[in-house]
Amino acid sequence: MSYSTVTPAIVEELKKIAGQKNVLVDEEKMEAYSHDETSAEEYGHMPEVVVTPTKTEEVAEIVKLANRENIPVTPRGAGSGLSGGAIPIFGGILLSVEKMNKIIEVDFENMVVTAEAGVVTNDIITLVKEQNLFYAGYPMSVQTCYLGGNIAENAGGGKAVKYGVTGRYIQGMEVVTPKGDVVNLGGKLAKDVSGYDLKQLLIGSEGTLGIVTKAIVKLTGLPSTSAVLLVLFESARAAIDTVPVIMSNGIVPTSIEFMDQLSVHTSCQYLNESLPYENCGAMLVIEVDGNNPSQVEADMIAIGDLCMENNAQEVYIAEDKNAIERIWNVRRNIAEAFKIYSPVQSLEDIVVPMAAIPDIIPELDRISETYKMKIPCYGHAGDGNLHATLVKDPKMSMEKWHKIEPIALKELYEVTDKLGGKISGEHGIGIKRRSYLKELMDPVELELMKGIKKAWDPNNIMNPGKIFI
Amino acid sequence: MSYSTVTPAIVEELKKIAGQKNVLVDEEKMEAYSHDETSAEEYGHMPEVVVTPTKTEEVAEIVKLANRENIPVTPRGAGSGLSGGAIPIFGGILLSVEKMNKIIEVDFENMVVTAEAGVVTNDIITLVKEQNLFYAGYPMSVQTCYLGGNIAENAGGGKAVKYGVTGRYIQGMEVVTPKGDVVNLGGKLAKDVSGYDLKQLLIGSEGTLGIVTKAIVKLTGLPSTSAVLLVLFESARAAIDTVPVIMSNGIVPTSIEFMDQLSVHTSCQYLNESLPYENCGAMLVIEVDGNNPSQVEADMIAIGDLCMENNAQEVYIAEDKNAIERIWNVRRNIAEAFKIYSPVQSLEDIVVPMAAIPDIIPELDRISETYKMKIPCYGHAGDGNLHATLVKDPKMSMEKWHKIEPIALKELYEVTDKLGGKISGEHGIGIKRRSYLKELMDPVELELMKGIKKAWDPNNIMNPGKIFI
Repeated sequence: MSYSTVTPAIVEELKKIAGQKNVLVDEEKMEAYSHDETSAEEYGHMPEVVVTPTKTEEVAEIVKLANRENIPVTPRGAGSGLSGGAIPIFGGILLSVEKMNKIIEVDFENMVVTAEAGVVTNDIITLVKEQNLFYAGYPMSVQTCYLGGNIAENAGGGKAVKYGVTGRYIQGMEVVTPKGDVVNLGGKLAKDVSGYDLKQLLIGSEGTLGIVTKAIVKLTGLPSTSAVLLVLFESARAAIDTVPVIMSNGIVPTSIEFMDQLSVHTSCQYLNESLPYENCGAMLVIEVDGNNPSQVEADMIAIGDLCMENNAQEVYIAEDKNAIERIWNVRRNIAEAFKIYSPVQSLEDIVVPMAAIPDIIPELDRISETYKMKIPCYGHAGDGNLHATLVKDPKMSMEKWHKIEPIALKELYEVTDKLGGKISGEHGIGIKRRSYLKELMDPVELELMKGIKKAWDPNNIMNPGKIFI
Repeated sequence: MSYSTVTPAIVEELKKIAGQKNVLVDEEKMEAYSHDETSAEEYGHMPEVVVTPTKTEEVAEIVKLANRENIPVTPRGAGSGLSGGAIPIFGGILLSVEKMNKIIEVDFENMVVTAEAGVVTNDIITLVKEQNLFYAGYPMSVQTCYLGGNIAENAGGGKAVKYGVTGRYIQGMEVVTPKGDVVNLGGKLAKDVSGYDLKQLLIGSEGTLGIVTKAIVKLTGLPSTSAVLLVLFESARAAIDTVPVIMSNGIVPTSIEFMDQLSVHTSCQYLNESLPYENCGAMLVIEVDGNNPSQVEADMIAIGDLCMENNAQEVYIAEDKNAIERIWNVRRNIAEAFKIYSPVQSLEDIVVPMAAIPDIIPELDRISETYKMKIPCYGHAGDGNLHATLVKDPKMSMEKWHKIEPIALKELYEVTDKLGGKISGEHGIGIKRRSYLKELMDPVELELMKGIKKAWDPNNIMNPGKIFI
């Protein structure tokens, strides 16, 4: 792909569109926009200009200009992505939605919130909590991520087992197309089959089909009660074996999170926290919620009994908010903690059928042994979505790491594929997994995707180089 | 659009692909394939040949042949559609999936069923019932419709308020593309962001983007208890006014169905049934389900109280299966009953935001009065999805009906649009609503849809003339 350069004249034009103070060309200021939560060294790339528009009309004008001048546009949310989706790998215009951060309307009668793409997801949750409502599609990084990014990646989260992922809660959106047109899709509607569901196509398209500028988000009744089980097992395998048993037993837990020993240890050390884990090889964190305390308790006991029948060592019940928050905090901070332990790593996001989860564990052990790397594993076991992480041994040279990491990854992906799984459950393909997607995906499916991309974005200016290679 | 004719040589080739007995050219036998549940007189059209393949490979060969020879292919399920989606309006090949009716696998561990497109939806429900599982996405016509048709239309149903529509439950599918390639999308996966979600794009695309030949359907735990409230109101307006109050009150009912007086009367007469309705202007049928009988009862009482506070005349609770089934039977048979009362009618499917439902009723009254036609109204009020039906007065001439029906429809759609609604919630656009879609939809959105259609089906052979005009 060959693109035009962002000339001083283009920068002037951008300033006319978005205002002087919303256009950055200073290298130092632009640096923060050159990477996301993937390794900056490995994937980072500087933009030629950063624009932070405040209105949809400005976004549309910027995209029109880019399309006319053949300049790539990389949309960016909070930069908390884990696949390089917001990295401007061809330079060009980095379009950050950070200043489009208004919650436009809370419509209690229709139980929806209309918000701009740059709203921090947690702000929505905080705002509607008093009315006993919540936005159930939120991801683990809820305190920093933006709604726009959640939509672009179809982010999952800790409550997806019961509530599903982002896509289930987006009823409408305003989008700037790759040609710079503004279009409203969907509405405050529970259902709608008036033509193709373009909304669902845009969700998870990683900013390659347009920039979502606003969204109508469905709210859910906030369950009044929840409780968390912390279940200890001797081994990762024993813990994981229990997941399909729970999932097929009639009770729908809010979440079933898995953490192996290494993950728990590392996060606890990082947080200076102590959980009852000394002798356990792995744990499951199982949450149940509802409006009926006696039902929630009965569900907890039933699940606890099931776990004990399936080789759990111990079951702890956390019912007060503080105890629950401590456990979730350990779970949420695993990725951060590992960056300190060893910054060179590949955080993976494989997803397999529920019943195949146990088959993944020995494969991880095998890959770990073959390539002499630690592979801590944690994640949303109830969804079959595991964040196995390939971690470089601090003693291993970078040269060797760069040689073996792609081989180990490929093996992991091939095993996942063989088990009926996919290479990403919630983090996306971005630049990190595009070559693997190309290798593993049916060429017919890939061609169908590219057909859409080409039809909507003939000049390939909208977040180019993501998903496809 | 100009297509080639199905010559005797093409018929021979089809016989070679699908077998002699699976190719029909006899006019009498083909007649049944010339219409769906919309008016045959108004929308019907004969195919040139009917093929009933038994395997995916045959479907692929037929589509390849059609694409090569420039012959339109119209896929067909049970023919229970309500927008003309399965009518071969350009003649050509009618491809019925009726002989692809195997349930391939029931995978209890993963809680999924894999089934061919021609499976009657109810067969899945019956099969898994003993294991306390159910398929929650099913539509009202569950006893006759096919899974493939449900997917093509993204069918809704009586339980959508709580459980959502078909699309939520389709985890994977096998599709024959408009070029005749076979591709598998998704899998037995709770989540997946490995590229665009083509599965969701195909769901509701009315057979214009490919033929779904198999699907992996997610099952849900069958709730052990349910109860139904029959709530009587003095007027349609009073009943409808209560819906947003219930929906925003924290309890999620399984369904809130609305029936006005005319709908109930007509269905009861048709079924020779008697419900407690004598003095009521309209009723709501509200179902609550769950696994905890005391919770279900508490929810019922709370909803019943809410209704009484909002001007309900009476609340009946039906808790035994027989009483519940009788009520649902009346609801399910309204459309059938009306065909006998007056076969000339237009069954509509508008959907509006929950809070806007009350505003629709006076508009229906106004249109009814202006154009001197009865407009009985019933439907899934909890989703904002109402089946207002424009019924010709038996005394009105057909000539006059043909003149006023499009004008009245247009007014109904414009009002719906103004209230933030859409012209179809679950029946689809098909041929029936395509001219209205074109008028009401943002041209940018329409162009995005057509862009996909053109990229995937450059010769426009796959169910042409549907959705777009």
